[in-house]
Amino acid sequence: MSKVNIAEKFAQFDGYWEPKIAGELNNQYVKLAKLKGEFIWHHHENEDELFLVIKGRLIIKLRDGDVELNEGEFYIIPRGIEHKPVAKIEVHILLFEPKGTVNTGNADSEKTINELEVI
Amino acid sequence: MSKVNIAEKFAQFDGYWEPKIAGELNNQYVKLAKLKGEFIWHHHENEDELFLVIKGRLIIKLRDGDVELNEGEFYIIPRGIEHKPVAKIEVHILLFEPKGTVNTGNADSEKTINELEVI
Repeated sequence: MSKVNIAEKFAQFDGYWEPKIAGELNNQYVKLAKLKGEFIWHHHENEDELFLVIKGRLIIKLRDGDVELNEGEFYIIPRGIEHKPVAKIEVHILLFEPKGTVNTGNADSEKTINELEVI
Repeated sequence: MSKVNIAEKFAQFDGYWEPKIAGELNNQYVKLAKLKGEFIWHHHENEDELFLVIKGRLIIKLRDGDVELNEGEFYIIPRGIEHKPVAKIEVHILLFEPKGTVNTGNADSEKTINELEVI
């Protein structure tokens, strides 16, 4: 593989809530996504999910409170925990999660993306 | 867990080539390490390893050439591939790799660290 410059990758796509695959290792994906607005409540039955904020500020709503992530901060959402990401302004995030992880978890909806683009 | 502010974590330790555990998910660790100087040639038999540069510039020597990583760039070294990290100035990196990964891989030496500190 080549090295990945994260900022250059973000310059290559638009579209919110559409994670792209930027790397693969140990049956996990590194994904990059632009977020803006509110996502839906969901959980992942068998996957823990890491959110690292590259740019902007992300609120992750949890049933027992909110987590606010700024640039250079990450949070790991354990499997089974309901969450709802909210981005008041455009946010760029890096995700680490198992290859099979679906963006909407248990909550299949029109936001569900089953085939991810590799960038 | 709490959210992790990467810069705050780096302010909490000194010591080069001594990765700290900053997160755990899906049987993988997120590690943070400060590097300076030259490491040893080694490979990991069963683990792919992601290096993300948070600060500074890292050279990863490979048998078929060097990869230079600046801030905001990452590289995935597949299992079995020999590599030697070199940091001419202090570098801060984030690693993502399976829990069992040993820093020196196949090359047990005085640099080997078997028990990692959690920060």
